[in-house]
Amino acid sequence: MNIMTRQEIEAILPSLELVPIIEAGFVAYSKGWAVVPPVGELLLDRGDVHIKYGYIRHDDYYVIKIASGFYDNGRYGLSTSNGLMLLFRQQTGELQSVLLDEGRLTDIRTAVAGAIAAKHLAPTDVERIGIVGAGIQARLQLQHLAAATPCRKVLVWDRTDAQREQYRHDMSAHGFQVEMTGEQQEILRQCNLIVTCTPATEPLLQVADLRPGTHITAVGADTPHKQELDGAILGRADLVVADSIAQCLVRGEIHQAVKGGFLAEGNIVELGSIVYGAIPGREDPEQITVADLTGVAVQDIQIAKAVYEAAVTTLP
Amino acid sequence: MNIMTRQEIEAILPSLELVPIIEAGFVAYSKGWAVVPPVGELLLDRGDVHIKYGYIRHDDYYVIKIASGFYDNGRYGLSTSNGLMLLFRQQTGELQSVLLDEGRLTDIRTAVAGAIAAKHLAPTDVERIGIVGAGIQARLQLQHLAAATPCRKVLVWDRTDAQREQYRHDMSAHGFQVEMTGEQQEILRQCNLIVTCTPATEPLLQVADLRPGTHITAVGADTPHKQELDGAILGRADLVVADSIAQCLVRGEIHQAVKGGFLAEGNIVELGSIVYGAIPGREDPEQITVADLTGVAVQDIQIAKAVYEAAVTTLP
Repeated sequence: MNIMTRQEIEAILPSLELVPIIEAGFVAYSKGWAVVPPVGELLLDRGDVHIKYGYIRHDDYYVIKIASGFYDNGRYGLSTSNGLMLLFRQQTGELQSVLLDEGRLTDIRTAVAGAIAAKHLAPTDVERIGIVGAGIQARLQLQHLAAATPCRKVLVWDRTDAQREQYRHDMSAHGFQVEMTGEQQEILRQCNLIVTCTPATEPLLQVADLRPGTHITAVGADTPHKQELDGAILGRADLVVADSIAQCLVRGEIHQAVKGGFLAEGNIVELGSIVYGAIPGREDPEQITVADLTGVAVQDIQIAKAVYEAAVTTLP
Repeated sequence: MNIMTRQEIEAILPSLELVPIIEAGFVAYSKGWAVVPPVGELLLDRGDVHIKYGYIRHDDYYVIKIASGFYDNGRYGLSTSNGLMLLFRQQTGELQSVLLDEGRLTDIRTAVAGAIAAKHLAPTDVERIGIVGAGIQARLQLQHLAAATPCRKVLVWDRTDAQREQYRHDMSAHGFQVEMTGEQQEILRQCNLIVTCTPATEPLLQVADLRPGTHITAVGADTPHKQELDGAILGRADLVVADSIAQCLVRGEIHQAVKGGFLAEGNIVELGSIVYGAIPGREDPEQITVADLTGVAVQDIQIAKAVYEAAVTTLP
C-alpha cells in the first residue's frame, strides 16, 4: 500500500498524457462498462462533502473519491476545496493507494474534460477564448485548452476587478494575451470558444448574445441549483453534450434547460459517444455546441489509476 | 494529519473504555443529533463495499468509513473483511486522520454494541451464554460480554465441527467454560443470553425453543436478505430494540419480522433511548428481549474519534 502526498502527485502529473486517459474513462462510461453509484453527500454547517466512487468492469481497481468545499476556509488561510482519492483492488478489496491530493486531481481531471470537450466541439478557427470566472478552475481550463486550439487571445470576465486583474497577470505568464471585461455579455459577443467556471446560481450568459459558430463548455454548475447559462442557449444549440446524461438530468445546465422547457431529454448526447465516434462532434463551422460537465467518477477512477501506476513504476 | 496502521490502532484500543464511548453515539443518534446519510454501496464480482459516514452536530469531526467483504480472499491468504476510517474536521473539512484499521474497528465497535445491549437487556442471572457462529465476531462478542455479566459458561453452535472446536479452544484461553453443540435448538433451550453472529439467510433459532427470561442480540443480519431469527421470536418478545429503527426497517431481523407480519413498526424501540433512560430496558427477569444490531455510522464516528484522540495525546 502506498500513500502519496500532494507534492508527490504534482511531481508525477506532468509526465501523464491525461487527455487519452480521461477520454478512455468517458468511453467506458458511455459504453456502459462503468459502475458508478449515485454520489454520496454529507451537508455540514460550513461546507459540504461529496463521495464519488465506482469502477470500470474487468479493470484492476475501484476508486472512492472524497471531495469537500468549505466556504469559510479563506478566513483560516485554507483552501476552500479539499479531498483525497482511495484506490482499491477489484479482486480482493485491498487498499492499494491513498492519494492525498487535497482536491488537486479533481481540479485537473475537470480541466482535462474541458480540453476534451473543446477537442471534439470547438470551431477550428477560434477568434478568442472567453473565460467566465477567474478562480482556480478558470486558470486550469485555459491552460489545458492550449492543446486543443492554437488561439492565445483571451477575454476574461469576473465579478470583481481584482480577480480579473490577477487572472490577466497569471495567465499572461503562461503565454496568453488576456483582456478583461466587466460586461459579461462581451464574452458571447467577442469569443467563440467559451468556458464558464463560476458557482453562479443565475444565468451569466444570455441567448440574445449567442452567435453561430460558438462552443460553450459549462463547468461551474454541478448541483441542482447552480446555473451559468440561459436555458434558451441550450435550446438554440445544434448539439448539447453531457458528460453523463443521467447525472446532467438532475444537476447542472442541462437539468435547468430541461426543467425550463428549452431542451428535450432526447436531444442530449454523451461526450464518451462522441469520443469513440458513435456520434459526430462538430461537423460545421456555424454550429452552436454546448458541453455540460458535472463531473463523473470515471474521471476520478482514470486519473487516480494513472497517477498510482506512474508512481509504482518510477518510485524506488 | 496523522496516518495510523492497524498495529498502532491495536496498541491504543486496550486503553479505551469503549462502552460509554459507543453508548454516547447511540444516545446522540436516538436524540436526533447525528447526521447519517444512507449507506453507499458498491457491488463487485468478488465482493461488496459499504461506505458509512456522518457526524454528530456540534462535534469536532465527521467520519467516512469504508468496509469491504471479498468472499474469495481466503484463497489468497487474505482476510475476507477489510476497511479504513477517515476522520475530518467539521469546521474546515481538513483530513485529520487516516485509520488503516483493515476493518478491525468495525469488528470492535460491533462487539461493544453487543455488550451495551446485554448491559441494558440481559437478565441479571445468566445461566449460560449462547453463541451462534464461531467466527471473529463470535469471539469478540463473547470477550466483550465479560463486562456485562459474571457468567462464564458458554454454549457455542456452528455448522462445522472444526470451527466449534477451534472456538472452544480459543475462548477457553480467555477464561470461559465452553461447551459445543451441533444442534442449534440447544442454544435457546440451555442459554438465556444469546448472541447470533452468522451470515445466515434462513432462521437458525425457532420460536418453539424460546423460554421466558431470554435476551437475544442478533448481530449477523446486516442486509435485507440475511436472517438468523424466526420472525415469530420478535413477535413473542416483550421488547424489540433496534440500533437504528430507520435502518432496521430495511435490513436485518426487524425488517424480516415486520415483512413477515410478526411485528408492528410501532413496537420497536431504539437502543440509544434505553441508554439515556427515555425508555426502560429489562424490567422483569421473565421478559423476553431482542436487540437487532445492523451497525450505524455513529459507532464508527465514536470509535474513530476515540482512537485518534488517544493517539494524538500519547504519540510524540
